[in-house]
Amino acid sequence: MSDFKSWMQGVQARMEDTLSAVLPRADHLPARLHEAMRYAVLDGGKRVRPLLAFAAGELTAASPERLAYAGAAVELIHAYSLVHDDMPAMDNDVLRRGKPTVHVAFDEATALLAGDALQTAAFDVLSHHALADQPATQLKMVGILARASGSLGMCGGQGVDLYSVGQTLTLPELELMHILKTGALIRAAVLLGAHCGEPLSDEELARVDHFAKCMGLAFQVVDDILDEEADTATLGKTAGKDAANNKPTYVALLGLKGARDKAAELQLDARAALAPFGARAERLLDLADYIVARSH
Amino acid sequence: MSDFKSWMQGVQARMEDTLSAVLPRADHLPARLHEAMRYAVLDGGKRVRPLLAFAAGELTAASPERLAYAGAAVELIHAYSLVHDDMPAMDNDVLRRGKPTVHVAFDEATALLAGDALQTAAFDVLSHHALADQPATQLKMVGILARASGSLGMCGGQGVDLYSVGQTLTLPELELMHILKTGALIRAAVLLGAHCGEPLSDEELARVDHFAKCMGLAFQVVDDILDEEADTATLGKTAGKDAANNKPTYVALLGLKGARDKAAELQLDARAALAPFGARAERLLDLADYIVARSH
Repeated sequence: MSDFKSWMQGVQARMEDTLSAVLPRADHLPARLHEAMRYAVLDGGKRVRPLLAFAAGELTAASPERLAYAGAAVELIHAYSLVHDDMPAMDNDVLRRGKPTVHVAFDEATALLAGDALQTAAFDVLSHHALADQPATQLKMVGILARASGSLGMCGGQGVDLYSVGQTLTLPELELMHILKTGALIRAAVLLGAHCGEPLSDEELARVDHFAKCMGLAFQVVDDILDEEADTATLGKTAGKDAANNKPTYVALLGLKGARDKAAELQLDARAALAPFGARAERLLDLADYIVARSH
Repeated sequence: MSDFKSWMQGVQARMEDTLSAVLPRADHLPARLHEAMRYAVLDGGKRVRPLLAFAAGELTAASPERLAYAGAAVELIHAYSLVHDDMPAMDNDVLRRGKPTVHVAFDEATALLAGDALQTAAFDVLSHHALADQPATQLKMVGILARASGSLGMCGGQGVDLYSVGQTLTLPELELMHILKTGALIRAAVLLGAHCGEPLSDEELARVDHFAKCMGLAFQVVDDILDEEADTATLGKTAGKDAANNKPTYVALLGLKGARDKAAELQLDARAALAPFGARAERLLDLADYIVARSH
């Protein structure tokens, strides 16, 4: 097994433990709500955002303890957004990570509350554990996650997505949507990981940020390609839904080959940004390759 | 006009300005989401939680600038919970503060996203403005709001409420539900306000906390009484719904007179806790009287 693969599995196992530890036990009142929260978060998912946090933490020699909490906070935001996104009022999806979605396995009211409480749990984790040498840095991290998650970030991107169904978007409009919808949280994962360790200069931080922005877009382009190509069994969720819903995608705009070229271009751009970091950036670069190359 | 009334109106006007300033403009993309967020928050509401934050701030000579942001954070959490609570999957309410609820005035998907983004906005406000002398204190404030809002606080209380429909609760069970559902956020409002100013001793903080817990319960008892008594026009929301839904209330358990006695008892207990603060506690005590005496 390659070093990268074993590193990845190590982070994934650690994240499972950390996420299980930060979520209230399934028998804690109200039990049904806590069961639903655990169901939505545990035992599934590639943990791409925590992986990015851990890899970015190698740039600044951050401790795994801090990175696990930072990664958990971002993953909880991601998980909440999936629970709400799957609900009948939004995408009305019944399958996620090969399992019935939360509103199917439980009920709609529970899915609504579980998503709400998972979002809060992210900020709970970020404020109840020591994640940086200075409280001021940690407060900044809370701000980064909040700005990335809200109506000027991920949630805003979901709004643009929602209101664009049946519309024809231009490439810049599509890019803006994804910069918010997927990119903002990917970017936050990288920045939070980097902030867990030694301080970076403004120039270094700008480079890390540029890398993160490229990866956020690349991730979405690859998602669109996979949605077009994969069958439902491989993907573990309902495939071809975006096309069926007439949602704008990179594949629809650029074609399959154009989308693949776009992903490769973003990958090169991301690599270039991290060149001055040398060996410290190896994990992030390996992860960038993995994200663009992943089959599902 | 009494001093208390003009103080209250001053805080309410200031909160309207602050909430309007911290929310993105209605024409900011995605415009429909931002319109819905502003619709849910602005031009309505008694701002009980911000009033409590401001009154608690007088215990520690906190600045109005800080208190306005702290009050806004708590009010945004409150507003998000109302938007989601009114949705068809939960209470399916069509009227709130005399206006159509968000999912009626907009649509369900927008109500879901607007509630989500309002919660995030609370943590955005709490992390992007200076609210305490020490960043460590401010980080603690983020933690107080998160713990009060999540599955071990307000959201958990909504879960207990949801799963108790049609059940017969005992008085201790009903109290636990309300301590979470309404009390946790009321308590956070008081504690956040107090933390904006000069540090309190542990003993003083425990007294403020006891006051806050009593007020949280009193507020809910009065709400139950009002729900039983008021007609829809006075209340600005659908009255008698709890009884119609067979939801447990203090009035159902204790009778109307018993519930009134309970509110008066909590009010006395709350006053006693603040006695050592002398004149600094006057606003909080006036506010406690107002909360228990309010007609709607």
